[in-house]
Amino acid sequence: MLVALVKVLAVVRGRKRSGRRPGSPDTREEILDAARDAFAADGFERSSIRRIAAAAGVDPALIHHYFGTKDKLFLAAIEAPFDPGEMIPKVFKHGSTNLGEHLIRTFVGIWDSPTGNRAAAFLRSAVTHPRMSKLVQQFLTNQVIRKGLSQVNPELDNIDLRGAMVASQLLGLALTRYILKVQALVDLSADELAAIYGPTIDRYVTMDLKDLSTREGTQ
Amino acid sequence: MLVALVKVLAVVRGRKRSGRRPGSPDTREEILDAARDAFAADGFERSSIRRIAAAAGVDPALIHHYFGTKDKLFLAAIEAPFDPGEMIPKVFKHGSTNLGEHLIRTFVGIWDSPTGNRAAAFLRSAVTHPRMSKLVQQFLTNQVIRKGLSQVNPELDNIDLRGAMVASQLLGLALTRYILKVQALVDLSADELAAIYGPTIDRYVTMDLKDLSTREGTQ
Repeated sequence: MLVALVKVLAVVRGRKRSGRRPGSPDTREEILDAARDAFAADGFERSSIRRIAAAAGVDPALIHHYFGTKDKLFLAAIEAPFDPGEMIPKVFKHGSTNLGEHLIRTFVGIWDSPTGNRAAAFLRSAVTHPRMSKLVQQFLTNQVIRKGLSQVNPELDNIDLRGAMVASQLLGLALTRYILKVQALVDLSADELAAIYGPTIDRYVTMDLKDLSTREGTQ
Repeated sequence: MLVALVKVLAVVRGRKRSGRRPGSPDTREEILDAARDAFAADGFERSSIRRIAAAAGVDPALIHHYFGTKDKLFLAAIEAPFDPGEMIPKVFKHGSTNLGEHLIRTFVGIWDSPTGNRAAAFLRSAVTHPRMSKLVQQFLTNQVIRKGLSQVNPELDNIDLRGAMVASQLLGLALTRYILKVQALVDLSADELAAIYGPTIDRYVTMDLKDLSTREGTQ
């Protein structure tokens, strides 16, 4: 409560001092647009709230007031259909036993819920707009894959690649079942999808990738 | 040669007789648009060249002249990045041995070639436009999946489902590697992709789906 008050005061002071625009209804969208530009151009790590504020012509305190942390600003900017900070602990609450099945059930649960419409809009936007493609790529790699797989096993090798392999099957399932609506997949229950796709996910997380990298000299 | 001449004469006769519009540069696009409407609304099997011709205000002979068969008209209407009639025999020329690896190599070969741009436009359009989603769903099911998998083993059960499972991994790979450009996947060679994804494809084609359908009472 006190923190919120201090933030609001900071915003008000910021406005008076700088003469920048007040927090009109459009300001929120302008901040988000500046954030999308910054994250897409510079990446999440190198983007700062200070610079995003400057680009949007507002005080940094207003961004903190509206969105909280840089993490939350990023999630708002890409209109993420879920918060990985809440989702990842749910998927991993059983440890890595039957990880693939749990992941498929959680994933299908999101798409089959009312949130599914937002997830579909998110995927459409990622496929259509190059700026969003970059943001979603960052979101998957930094917010979902690295944070998720490091919970399976902090020693796991090739985390980015394993995560990308998992993402390729999850997003392909979303594309065929929920966007193209291929009937044979629409007809399946979450249990059946978990039985089909769970072992694929488990193999991608655990398979030996050393032969692969030695053979081709990459990594 | 003679066949072509007869077709042209038929077109000319058709024009004179019916007084319909001649084959202007726009006519081809109008035929394709009428074809997209018909295929999306009625499906491939129930659509006829005669009705598409009526909707486009041209003689059916003109459609045959421009596009040949209904199959070819469909491929032109959806702007398919490849002709499955040519592609499928290539993938299956080694029989079903290492089918998954051959399929991945062929698929990645298309996307890594100059045709890749057309494939990306095709996928973007499928995700963005509901009419195209329906057409691509039909294309996958009827032209690619059924024709392809029946060559592996004509006795194979659950062909539509197996094909949809294969499509979900192939399209997910295309989405992550070529549209979202997830770096860890962009960095891999065709050999590495075949080693990772080939066994997934083989499992989807061969896995026992009976337990699945008994357990859930579907199929």
